[in-house]
Amino acid sequence: MQARRQTRQIRVGSVPVGGQAPVSVQGMTKSETRNRRQVLAEVRRMVRAGAEIVRIGIPDEESLEAVRWVKSRVAVPIVGDIHFNYRLAQQAIRAGVDGIRINPGNLGGPRRLKAVVETAREFGVSLRIGINSGSLEKDLRRLPVAKALVKSALRAVELLESLDFFNFKLSLKSSNVSEMIEAHRLVSARVDYPLHLGVTEAGPGLTGIVKSVLGIGVLLAEGIGDTIRVSLTGPSDLEVRTAWQILKGLGLRHRGVEIVSCPTCTRDSLKIRSLAEQVERRLAPREKEIKVAVMGCPVNGPGEASRADLGLVGSRGKAIIYFRGRPIGKRDRAEAVNAICELVDKLD
Amino acid sequence: MQARRQTRQIRVGSVPVGGQAPVSVQGMTKSETRNRRQVLAEVRRMVRAGAEIVRIGIPDEESLEAVRWVKSRVAVPIVGDIHFNYRLAQQAIRAGVDGIRINPGNLGGPRRLKAVVETAREFGVSLRIGINSGSLEKDLRRLPVAKALVKSALRAVELLESLDFFNFKLSLKSSNVSEMIEAHRLVSARVDYPLHLGVTEAGPGLTGIVKSVLGIGVLLAEGIGDTIRVSLTGPSDLEVRTAWQILKGLGLRHRGVEIVSCPTCTRDSLKIRSLAEQVERRLAPREKEIKVAVMGCPVNGPGEASRADLGLVGSRGKAIIYFRGRPIGKRDRAEAVNAICELVDKLD
Repeated sequence: MQARRQTRQIRVGSVPVGGQAPVSVQGMTKSETRNRRQVLAEVRRMVRAGAEIVRIGIPDEESLEAVRWVKSRVAVPIVGDIHFNYRLAQQAIRAGVDGIRINPGNLGGPRRLKAVVETAREFGVSLRIGINSGSLEKDLRRLPVAKALVKSALRAVELLESLDFFNFKLSLKSSNVSEMIEAHRLVSARVDYPLHLGVTEAGPGLTGIVKSVLGIGVLLAEGIGDTIRVSLTGPSDLEVRTAWQILKGLGLRHRGVEIVSCPTCTRDSLKIRSLAEQVERRLAPREKEIKVAVMGCPVNGPGEASRADLGLVGSRGKAIIYFRGRPIGKRDRAEAVNAICELVDKLD
Repeated sequence: MQARRQTRQIRVGSVPVGGQAPVSVQGMTKSETRNRRQVLAEVRRMVRAGAEIVRIGIPDEESLEAVRWVKSRVAVPIVGDIHFNYRLAQQAIRAGVDGIRINPGNLGGPRRLKAVVETAREFGVSLRIGINSGSLEKDLRRLPVAKALVKSALRAVELLESLDFFNFKLSLKSSNVSEMIEAHRLVSARVDYPLHLGVTEAGPGLTGIVKSVLGIGVLLAEGIGDTIRVSLTGPSDLEVRTAWQILKGLGLRHRGVEIVSCPTCTRDSLKIRSLAEQVERRLAPREKEIKVAVMGCPVNGPGEASRADLGLVGSRGKAIIYFRGRPIGKRDRAEAVNAICELVDKLD
């Protein structure tokens, strides 16, 4: 991994973003905001999955009331997502949200952006300037997308700086991974505001996951990015779990159990896939940071198990159990998962 | 994306690997190889999903017979995966496989590797030297993993070069993404043999997908890698589809329909997720390379739809249909997917 690029630090409520702060995980609710109980349940699901900042869309005043109600019931910082209506952004800040995401491309011009900035300054609330390839200012739409995103972002930066306002982060989202990567590289070379990474409109299922992991992962590996959101056409807690997998995969953050398991092949005598899934399911609720190897055969099994806290390696229809890198006995397949789960408590 | 690193070109049967050849997609069967009908069905599923090279594990002579039987029934190049038994590698080459994957860490020493090389030379078959963190030579196990992988690979390279044999590619797999990335960067700076990328033992479900996409994606974005395999503790055709999503996401290859769809939020009046899934499912069998935007609301919808071949954008409970970037009418939700699928035929 390349060294993390140095950015200024801002705060979204209690969560620092940028500077030396750990890369944080954000999520956004998908429920209709006015259904406040549904939103509250969704926020709680996301927090359990690991969301450290939650964004909620605020399209109207009824939604704003719902956000106020939700905000008073959760500890996680809440960011209001505002489009078109700058007055709503001001109202949301006064209602106590921890951050506001606005898109200069659809706010209605610099004067309105300035009005939001003044309210944000008054209440000490940070902004996200969210540039999006789907909603660029008209005069930029002829440029290559990455350049247009950067130009749009730099315009907003210039305006905010001219107002002596520096309490913001930037995002430059595109549904095209290469454009998104290019835009963040370019903007990162120009300014030192914290960057919020995400691929927008990533698409359904596997496509969405792969595009988000590529865009966010390539940039983080280059040391670019201070906070991330995975957007999927799918459940919001899956977005949060995917974000954590990116940070864990790159070794940037740690959280819970890591399972290392083989892809299975003709040498798998134990049907390892279902064992790995059982181990993952049983250990998922544990807060412990441990690594478990679940391997089908003696080709790579002993090597992986010796580097893990616990291991289960198939060998002629039996499971060899490893504890702290050493084999400690054999079990029948049916007992292997239990054996692993019992050993977890012996690790401290 | 950085420029692709220049490597030598080899062939695996009809498929060129390295040099200017497109980055190819590999898969490996998971059925017990001796169940030849099951293997054949699995190979065909993988080919339909886009596998361009298929590897099959050959643990014994009965499996070798099965591979011979399968090989005569498919066009896709077949690579035999051999561990421990160098004679089996020689027999597989004589049986007509297009490539052999061996792991110098468990073949039993340089003399046996040399024997395999001589047979490969005789039959014009390329090798993959597959180094794996789970099965390194004993004397390398004390080194940091990335360095140990590189050292093991360079030992094999030196031996093969001393035999005037250059018809091989390298892989350096680790279950740790950062180690795998680091190892490939290091080896890529030292030699110009084609590189086969993969994260080994990536784990079940989401974890496995994210780790594979990170390791492979970060390297490809740096211009490193000539052929890829995604390993998941999951179905082999999912591995192949994930590999294609990586190549498509980075713009390195194109294949079939690309759906751009929003993550949905409070502004989604159409329940876009199920529409996006329907569009994806209905268009998946098409060979056409088209981009379809399926978007919930007018914030980013018109922008995305104007850059796609076809579009569907929610607006007050109706779907605005886009054709070649322009709105052409409104449909009720129930008719929207049909409208899109009918328009596909009007694109040529």
